[in-house]
Amino acid sequence: MRNMQLIGTKKSQNYLDIARSLAKEFAETAVERDAKGGTPKYERDRLRQSNLLKLIVPTEYGGLGETWITVLRITREFAKVDSSIAHVFSYHHLGVVVPHIFGSTEQKQRYYAETIDNNWFWCNALNPLDKRTTLTPENNYFRLNGIKSFCSGSQDSDILPITATDQETDELKILAIPTQRQGVTVHDDWDNMGQRQTDSGTVTFENVLVYPDEILGIRDKPSQPFTTIRACLTQLNLANIYLGIAQGAFEAAKTYTGTNTKPWLTSGVESATKDPYILQHYGNIWVDLQAATCLVDQAGELLQQAWDQEWSLTAEQRGECALFIATTKVVATRVGLDITNRIFEVMGARATNAKYGFDRYWRNLRTFTLHDPFDYKIRDIGNWALNDELPKPNFYS
Amino acid sequence: MRNMQLIGTKKSQNYLDIARSLAKEFAETAVERDAKGGTPKYERDRLRQSNLLKLIVPTEYGGLGETWITVLRITREFAKVDSSIAHVFSYHHLGVVVPHIFGSTEQKQRYYAETIDNNWFWCNALNPLDKRTTLTPENNYFRLNGIKSFCSGSQDSDILPITATDQETDELKILAIPTQRQGVTVHDDWDNMGQRQTDSGTVTFENVLVYPDEILGIRDKPSQPFTTIRACLTQLNLANIYLGIAQGAFEAAKTYTGTNTKPWLTSGVESATKDPYILQHYGNIWVDLQAATCLVDQAGELLQQAWDQEWSLTAEQRGECALFIATTKVVATRVGLDITNRIFEVMGARATNAKYGFDRYWRNLRTFTLHDPFDYKIRDIGNWALNDELPKPNFYS
Amino acid sequence: MRNMQLIGTKKSQNYLDIARSLAKEFAETAVERDAKGGTPKYERDRLRQSNLLKLIVPTEYGGLGETWITVLRITREFAKVDSSIAHVFSYHHLGVVVPHIFGSTEQKQRYYAETIDNNWFWCNALNPLDKRTTLTPENNYFRLNGIKSFCSGSQDSDILPITATDQETDELKILAIPTQRQGVTVHDDWDNMGQRQTDSGTVTFENVLVYPDEILGIRDKPSQPFTTIRACLTQLNLANIYLGIAQGAFEAAKTYTGTNTKPWLTSGVESATKDPYILQHYGNIWVDLQAATCLVDQAGELLQQAWDQEWSLTAEQRGECALFIATTKVVATRVGLDITNRIFEVMGARATNAKYGFDRYWRNLRTFTLHDPFDYKIRDIGNWALNDELPKPNFYS
Amino acid sequence: MRNMQLIGTKKSQNYLDIARSLAKEFAETAVERDAKGGTPKYERDRLRQSNLLKLIVPTEYGGLGETWITVLRITREFAKVDSSIAHVFSYHHLGVVVPHIFGSTEQKQRYYAETIDNNWFWCNALNPLDKRTTLTPENNYFRLNGIKSFCSGSQDSDILPITATDQETDELKILAIPTQRQGVTVHDDWDNMGQRQTDSGTVTFENVLVYPDEILGIRDKPSQPFTTIRACLTQLNLANIYLGIAQGAFEAAKTYTGTNTKPWLTSGVESATKDPYILQHYGNIWVDLQAATCLVDQAGELLQQAWDQEWSLTAEQRGECALFIATTKVVATRVGLDITNRIFEVMGARATNAKYGFDRYWRNLRTFTLHDPFDYKIRDIGNWALNDELPKPNFYS
Repeated sequence: MRNMQLIGTKKSQNYLDIARSLAKEFAETAVERDAKGGTPKYERDRLRQSNLLKLIVPTEYGGLGETWITVLRITREFAKVDSSIAHVFSYHHLGVVVPHIFGSTEQKQRYYAETIDNNWFWCNALNPLDKRTTLTPENNYFRLNGIKSFCSGSQDSDILPITATDQETDELKILAIPTQRQGVTVHDDWDNMGQRQTDSGTVTFENVLVYPDEILGIRDKPSQPFTTIRACLTQLNLANIYLGIAQGAFEAAKTYTGTNTKPWLTSGVESATKDPYILQHYGNIWVDLQAATCLVDQAGELLQQAWDQEWSLTAEQRGECALFIATTKVVATRVGLDITNRIFEVMGARATNAKYGFDRYWRNLRTFTLHDPFDYKIRDIGNWALNDELPKPNFYS
Repeated sequence: MRNMQLIGTKKSQNYLDIARSLAKEFAETAVERDAKGGTPKYERDRLRQSNLLKLIVPTEYGGLGETWITVLRITREFAKVDSSIAHVFSYHHLGVVVPHIFGSTEQKQRYYAETIDNNWFWCNALNPLDKRTTLTPENNYFRLNGIKSFCSGSQDSDILPITATDQETDELKILAIPTQRQGVTVHDDWDNMGQRQTDSGTVTFENVLVYPDEILGIRDKPSQPFTTIRACLTQLNLANIYLGIAQGAFEAAKTYTGTNTKPWLTSGVESATKDPYILQHYGNIWVDLQAATCLVDQAGELLQQAWDQEWSLTAEQRGECALFIATTKVVATRVGLDITNRIFEVMGARATNAKYGFDRYWRNLRTFTLHDPFDYKIRDIGNWALNDELPKPNFYS
Repeated sequence: MRNMQLIGTKKSQNYLDIARSLAKEFAETAVERDAKGGTPKYERDRLRQSNLLKLIVPTEYGGLGETWITVLRITREFAKVDSSIAHVFSYHHLGVVVPHIFGSTEQKQRYYAETIDNNWFWCNALNPLDKRTTLTPENNYFRLNGIKSFCSGSQDSDILPITATDQETDELKILAIPTQRQGVTVHDDWDNMGQRQTDSGTVTFENVLVYPDEILGIRDKPSQPFTTIRACLTQLNLANIYLGIAQGAFEAAKTYTGTNTKPWLTSGVESATKDPYILQHYGNIWVDLQAATCLVDQAGELLQQAWDQEWSLTAEQRGECALFIATTKVVATRVGLDITNRIFEVMGARATNAKYGFDRYWRNLRTFTLHDPFDYKIRDIGNWALNDELPKPNFYS
Repeated sequence: MRNMQLIGTKKSQNYLDIARSLAKEFAETAVERDAKGGTPKYERDRLRQSNLLKLIVPTEYGGLGETWITVLRITREFAKVDSSIAHVFSYHHLGVVVPHIFGSTEQKQRYYAETIDNNWFWCNALNPLDKRTTLTPENNYFRLNGIKSFCSGSQDSDILPITATDQETDELKILAIPTQRQGVTVHDDWDNMGQRQTDSGTVTFENVLVYPDEILGIRDKPSQPFTTIRACLTQLNLANIYLGIAQGAFEAAKTYTGTNTKPWLTSGVESATKDPYILQHYGNIWVDLQAATCLVDQAGELLQQAWDQEWSLTAEQRGECALFIATTKVVATRVGLDITNRIFEVMGARATNAKYGFDRYWRNLRTFTLHDPFDYKIRDIGNWALNDELPKPNFYS
């Protein structure tokens, strides 16, 4: 009764079950792989085999035709046990739709079809804040040069969506090319305190050949609100992963408190599970998780509605969707940071043993919540609340 | 798009519109009446005339047959401008259903019918923590004696639902008798820092005649979960009023900042509406209001589902509903206390002028959020989160 | 051992004892006077009789020659029971030293001497943000015209320190003239939600005669750091009053919980004083009060050191003193707002009865903490922490 | 002016300078050593060479005769750059005084003298909550058996203070024996998420010979308050290390923001150092650090006064000292957790690169703040604030 069934169809439920089963598998090695870092090659292949990479591709191209609600729900499920996997999994989906959003109808169709045919694993090399990549015309094609940072999932990926500055027009262009193309080097240089198996390192491009039809955005309706929807997808994806991490932390702590934590010397209770302050912490955690879940789920419905409108989406609808998602992300960030800190209060000193890896919830969340600044999300929301102004669409708002 | 239409039918929308129109009217005198305290007699009569007192009574008894969703939504609307009115209005509805919940089928029918026939305004004299009221058998009837505190809306009420201890059995009995009956004295002694026009004072009973069929609970299914649903109704009603107060505070502040607040000396902005910290406050307020609204609305749907199940409601469903409502109330409390404090930061020193009455949001909320202790709501929720134990039903949980 | 003796001398201790005795007296009528508002005439006369208005005047002019440490400590003592009294009492002292800070040596001497001779009660009509008051030369003197807001303590005052714009030079001038002078009208128009007996209303000036030697600042060392010390005095005075209010709220709550509060239904404890959550609230209150007290006391010592340096005070010393005081005020504001809200959690619903007046702590603090914006105090401090830049001295920083 | 000189003497200042110089050295390898874990053997030897291990030993035994103020100040200095070093360094001092506190005068003298003669490095194997270690009489001596956990600094230590249960009397005995004694095995099994170079693993004892005069507490004044002072030492040491970590985090962030952080896309400022929200974060950090420092410093003075009283310390003085220290530790915990999280907001995503090791501040603090539960510190303080009851002395309060 409490959890309203957002995953509405039987089919969707099946995919969620598959994901849960995979998550269980990934959980077993998550602590070890977090310590090691690097590419979760085995897990990526398991995802490839699972068919879940085809979730968002419309059925007409051979995809599973699922909604973002399902994709995000599954992403959250992975995030509970391994937010690196959730990260590369979801950025795959955010990549798959890049031609749909930014490209011509032909490009949309072609990329969707090839994704299915080749069971491509997409990634992210868009980082529009990193302006060091350029596109230069040469005969009938282009040459891509430069470097791009924060390229999540680029190792072991099949195709790269990239932003690059057109040397002639100074415009930011979006393109998608195979990772294996000559001149592309994916560096194994992601070694950060969290999200350690996301391969969010750098990719360099040395005179890489780009064909004109690999450059997206050659479209007749450039200024339509739907072209700015990817920020909404990205931001809500972040909120889902943050929430998943928080839920995972809660579940891990619950198990630990129930089995390992001892009542404190002066508590006067016989079991830590009866301790008034431990109960209070769990009450606060639960309240926060419910609030975040309620918002994140509702945002998923809104986003799907916006997605379904496609080119008829209005600026106002897009703006309200973006605002609701921003709100959602703010709450998920706050709640997540609180919970990943607070779980230690209800577990005690022995829970800091490295074998449990309980610090990874915080490291992952703290790292990933820096994607774009929290404070400016709040400001955008405040500008709406006070001045009724919608946020100006960019890659983050 | 953002505000999903929970008030689903055209008819319900009409009632909401009526309520909004009344709220506008009440708003004009709210500050003045808050200062004065006492009984909002004129406003109570306006409610009587509006037909809105009949909202929850099923159509078969001549009522409007609306849902709790509508009742609570309208209560929240009143709370935005005058939480005392919202209080007596909503406790009327919580009273109207007392015979339905606790009484026999005959009692349910009779009280519903009489409520409609006489356009009764109910109130609250249940306070089960105040044990000073007794019921003593005498011949074929009973005598009620003693005193009851926190009797919201008792002044100018038509009928009183009361708890009293049966002198013979020591059981807590619930009864409902006309306010005008001989021996009942409603005291004009509510003078508190908030909710000042709720007449939540004391009622004394001096040898008051009570007929057997005015004593509820003579029923063949005493231990069914539905008999404990009133705590859910009360608690979610509180959450709606808290949220309404917070929304009202936000709206008042927004208008004030937009028209009166000056940019600070060293802010470097030309208008307070561009001040980065003022925007931040409004962002935080908005985020909190969205989270609370999302939860409160979803709780309303859950509660209505539980209500609709009536005698087939299971203990588990009741428990999960109670927990979700508790969560909701915790969030509304926190959010409300923060916002009613925070609005002053975005308005400035001149907003403390008594003519605005901006402190009444805090005084009302701070007073009403003490209905039952916040900390024990959290503990109950924590006991569920950690130990999977549902709260034991009582008048508050 | 815990409370280090900052009030070092026996004499100072005597003054503190006198203040405590007066505070006890004021406490008896504080709730009633708060409700009534207006001028605390009787209490002002008690202050006049007490000799405490002479505390800061150097002994060479017949004053008591006490330090700011003593003045602020006594102010805090009054604030515990009546922050309006604390307000007018402390602004008297902030007024007494205006000629010392801004005037010539002759002016300093003359105003100190007259203050003692006439037992003057000073007040505040400086509000430099209100630019509606002008000074116009006329023959050998000047004429003062216009209006000034937020003139705390002006009713029943003997002398007014005022800022006014010189019509010829456009400079802001500071002057001090008797309240009784022809053309001065102190309006009885302060009716705000807090600090209700501070008479912080408006004063109008209609062609008021001002003699040249009543205009301060005719000095040979205009740009010295000491001339900006009044902001430090004002700000630390605010912090002391905020802290005093918080301490008063704590003490009132402690008494109430210990005598009136009942243990909650499901708490499992026999007395509210054993309730784990009530103990937690008191623990948090205590921690916060200790932190604020530690800072406020240390700031008092710093301020006195700065005051003692007088014209040899350097800009850096002044800046560090201002920063420490700003820090102090930020903490006192936060702690105070939290405590004046939190006390209700540990007292319960019956504590909202108007007879206790427990809401006045919040109303007073919420009103007075809007003196100048909290957010810009934080920004100034942040600019020091990150960029090593001292705040630019103005009337607030 | 701002930083009052608590380190009063020239000599003390010299030791602080030595410590600062060592800290600089340790800082260079801190990130690398944190990753590696294990024993900081080189650094421990540098401490041995520095003479700083002799700080607290009275001059009459050849020690440096410094106060706890100096010891704690230096500990804090180390904690800024390497809280593992600070940990083993300070626990050495907490160990050195164990015979003084718990032993006979003869034992105090002997252990002090031998410490100096052999330049012993003490550690901690007291953990009284771990009851698995026993002491059994055998002829004229005893045999120690069992296991002890959380033995900070035991690797490379020279002498171990231990608690063990006397098999005959069931009393908890305190003893101190050389780490090298036959049957003692220090396990290299500390691999936790923070405080990674503290060697806080387990030590096992297999039939270890213990001489009667190595068992402390054979004293004629067993129940005097001074015997419970070690909890005060430990708790204030924790507060100093927490504060040091927070200060270190602040300093690292300040440097990073000033040199690396870019202004956000929509911030409208040209440098991150002018960003209103970044300034706000630094403002909050600074305020919190000042509050914590003010309390921790004052607690240091109180503790030293208590220490100086030695056997004339009263229970009330001890209690008030313990309470003030508890307050201090609560604030340092809160402030530290906030700052070690918050620094990332002011640095941005690139600061999560493992090469900076900025997560170690949080990992160290989060680990070490679990020493004993925060919530029960608050409860103890609340019991004092509400009920005027001093905490019952134990190893933690």
